[in-house]
Amino acid sequence: MGQAQENPKDLPRRLTAEAVGTAFLLAAVVGSGIMGERLAGGNDAVALLANTVSTGAALSVLLLVFGPISGAHFNPAVTVAEGFLGGLAWRDVPAYLAVQVTGAIAGVVVANLMFDEPAVFFSQKERFGTGQWLGEFVATFGLLAVIQGCVRLRSSTVPLAVGGYITAAYWFTSSTSFANPAVTIARTLSDTFAGIDPMHAPAFIVMQFAGAAAATALFWWLVPPEPEGSIMTLWRST
Amino acid sequence: MGQAQENPKDLPRRLTAEAVGTAFLLAAVVGSGIMGERLAGGNDAVALLANTVSTGAALSVLLLVFGPISGAHFNPAVTVAEGFLGGLAWRDVPAYLAVQVTGAIAGVVVANLMFDEPAVFFSQKERFGTGQWLGEFVATFGLLAVIQGCVRLRSSTVPLAVGGYITAAYWFTSSTSFANPAVTIARTLSDTFAGIDPMHAPAFIVMQFAGAAAATALFWWLVPPEPEGSIMTLWRST
Amino acid sequence: MGQAQENPKDLPRRLTAEAVGTAFLLAAVVGSGIMGERLAGGNDAVALLANTVSTGAALSVLLLVFGPISGAHFNPAVTVAEGFLGGLAWRDVPAYLAVQVTGAIAGVVVANLMFDEPAVFFSQKERFGTGQWLGEFVATFGLLAVIQGCVRLRSSTVPLAVGGYITAAYWFTSSTSFANPAVTIARTLSDTFAGIDPMHAPAFIVMQFAGAAAATALFWWLVPPEPEGSIMTLWRST
Amino acid sequence: MGQAQENPKDLPRRLTAEAVGTAFLLAAVVGSGIMGERLAGGNDAVALLANTVSTGAALSVLLLVFGPISGAHFNPAVTVAEGFLGGLAWRDVPAYLAVQVTGAIAGVVVANLMFDEPAVFFSQKERFGTGQWLGEFVATFGLLAVIQGCVRLRSSTVPLAVGGYITAAYWFTSSTSFANPAVTIARTLSDTFAGIDPMHAPAFIVMQFAGAAAATALFWWLVPPEPEGSIMTLWRST
Repeated sequence: MGQAQENPKDLPRRLTAEAVGTAFLLAAVVGSGIMGERLAGGNDAVALLANTVSTGAALSVLLLVFGPISGAHFNPAVTVAEGFLGGLAWRDVPAYLAVQVTGAIAGVVVANLMFDEPAVFFSQKERFGTGQWLGEFVATFGLLAVIQGCVRLRSSTVPLAVGGYITAAYWFTSSTSFANPAVTIARTLSDTFAGIDPMHAPAFIVMQFAGAAAATALFWWLVPPEPEGSIMTLWRST
Repeated sequence: MGQAQENPKDLPRRLTAEAVGTAFLLAAVVGSGIMGERLAGGNDAVALLANTVSTGAALSVLLLVFGPISGAHFNPAVTVAEGFLGGLAWRDVPAYLAVQVTGAIAGVVVANLMFDEPAVFFSQKERFGTGQWLGEFVATFGLLAVIQGCVRLRSSTVPLAVGGYITAAYWFTSSTSFANPAVTIARTLSDTFAGIDPMHAPAFIVMQFAGAAAATALFWWLVPPEPEGSIMTLWRST
Repeated sequence: MGQAQENPKDLPRRLTAEAVGTAFLLAAVVGSGIMGERLAGGNDAVALLANTVSTGAALSVLLLVFGPISGAHFNPAVTVAEGFLGGLAWRDVPAYLAVQVTGAIAGVVVANLMFDEPAVFFSQKERFGTGQWLGEFVATFGLLAVIQGCVRLRSSTVPLAVGGYITAAYWFTSSTSFANPAVTIARTLSDTFAGIDPMHAPAFIVMQFAGAAAATALFWWLVPPEPEGSIMTLWRST
Repeated sequence: MGQAQENPKDLPRRLTAEAVGTAFLLAAVVGSGIMGERLAGGNDAVALLANTVSTGAALSVLLLVFGPISGAHFNPAVTVAEGFLGGLAWRDVPAYLAVQVTGAIAGVVVANLMFDEPAVFFSQKERFGTGQWLGEFVATFGLLAVIQGCVRLRSSTVPLAVGGYITAAYWFTSSTSFANPAVTIARTLSDTFAGIDPMHAPAFIVMQFAGAAAATALFWWLVPPEPEGSIMTLWRST
């Protein structure tokens, strides 16, 4: 656990970047899910393909835009891991988590309103079972592996790598890769293509943190951070 | 508002680049919409997917080609914002706007003719309502955020980021992200997949400028331009 | 017209690279067309989407692999333009054209055989009319604009830009962007999705050279090559 | 045949990287195949498109993450070629092959379990015939050409080039480009979209090694490695 490094941006700007970025991410996930389902004429593969293209592209772009400001975590599992790795001071972690969840909810509200749905309406989409729980473990393990592997060795590739990873993982995990506790909470608030029944969210979140912890441990051993404070952090990933 | 910097290219070359680039952009938007709809056998999601892939790729490529010449705005909302930010001298703004609209119309005419349609025929496609107006605000807010965020901190990524953003936004906004007043005007002139009824264009354009203004204000605060004339401008984004 | 620069590779290696690269390009165009049509269950938009993804990705990759060896023209229109621009010595032009056509035919034969079709069987697919001829002019104009714009100002982006351009142009031109005389000749030899009736090839080829000439003239003015021999050529595009 | 160069990572870390990376690759190939087929409503082109997008993106990302650690071969044909080229010491080759096959099998098991299928169940999918065998030769020839061409001349592009190549080759080869003996073995263990009848695996593997050998010979001549130990190897491809 290294010494946390100071990000050159002050906290209000970083929190704003996290909130706006996470809001756009959720608007993309939920909005493109609605559009995809409405237009696909019942072919769920076509709807998920549209959802995938939109989400993957949005994620890469958002990391490019907000990475140099806040690190562009948009994800409590990433923020907690960065706390352990010294990429974010622990005193900033609670505020990051709060704006991520708030921003995510705001993004879902915007998506719902853009498509003339109620601002908030709980999803009834069932997502559970050992297969999907394993899926969330694998999805988040992979996401953190991608972030930590790339950030330490080829940091400029992080935005493309993360977007590419989620593009792939939407299809290769049975849960369609939520891989993000803030995203999971927010997606309970739209009873549309990308929604999740609130009853099924907690198990997803548990598996997400478990997968993140396992990947962090593995990459701690695979690519040990250098001794004296030279830990690469996400906000430096230019 | 910084001191405007001189672009190394003379004005006739820059205006030609804006005109040709915007024409190609519209040929891509309208042409791929026609092709998508004709081949998709009634599945609008497949048609929009084709339209998305073509538009996103074309946009990235056009920014690569014309960015170093004219800045590759192709968009009055971008040009006006660059005027405020000092990236383009105010005296050049009217000429930019004029060639963007002219080029956009020329591109639609070429698309119509390539697909054996009348050179110009007004669209009757209805696009209105609070959801879609919010969509245009969000779409243009995001577009300007991407441009201004990337151009100041990682300027070489602008072409890919803008293309990726529009790829995502075609699906996550209910209006399919026109996000560009010149594009909106030109798309009234083709009664095909990508068209818009001329009666519905003004509201879209109002929301686009509003979204652009909001994003410009936010990023003015988030990533303040450096004091002495070092504002990054789009034509330097190599 | 500048002084032609010497490529560090000898001619046999460059011709081999052109031949192998053009063969792979045609195998991708024709092979993915066959696969797309066979699997798409009659939905031509889905078939063309598959054809597009495969061709665009293959083209970018082939330019990455063979660009530093031969310039990766794969296209008589590009080779003739490079002759005019001093990027290739005129004495090498005929050999480039010969191996491009030969390689293209070989690629179609391989594609036909991989899919258990006759090695060569003439296409009966009709492709003609003023709309499609305009399409080929626009397609090749755009292709040469992309190459010449990027190669002089941001040469490392050429492979991605060219692949991205063809991805877009497959959909926004009514002719699906052959944009290449060698490709046009070779595609007469497979009566499958990507084929073209030999009777309709000559008009396509005329329009391709016309589009290439127009783009070369425009970019000669837009981005004048530097005076003393510093013309960027494709084989240096690393 | 050059002098093998020492990778800075110790063998246990490199083998772990190969195993984890190959496992994720197979989870992506098999998992996205299952998801694609389940959702596509009988349209195999849509299922293969999903499978392609997921596999291509996953492969690029995995090369970014694991390339600097182990070289990210994930493929016995690549490992053996690297042995010949001096990129990997021969004494390490057997261990690489063992963990690639083991990791590949583990990835298929994970994919099967995520989608609530038996951990292992032999595929009955027939894949044979001269067309498909030619397809595997072409596919692996191309893969090795891409790797060796890019790694010697523009090594930072290898991850994107390899992912892009497989994206293309899934569609332009009649066999859908297995192009990897470890992948071929593992795909016998899932009777789903991406499976292959174990009886048909050996012929695929023979053609894969033949294609790899031909490409290695061609590029040995096209881009000769420099004399004194300066062979570029995959683990340096940053």
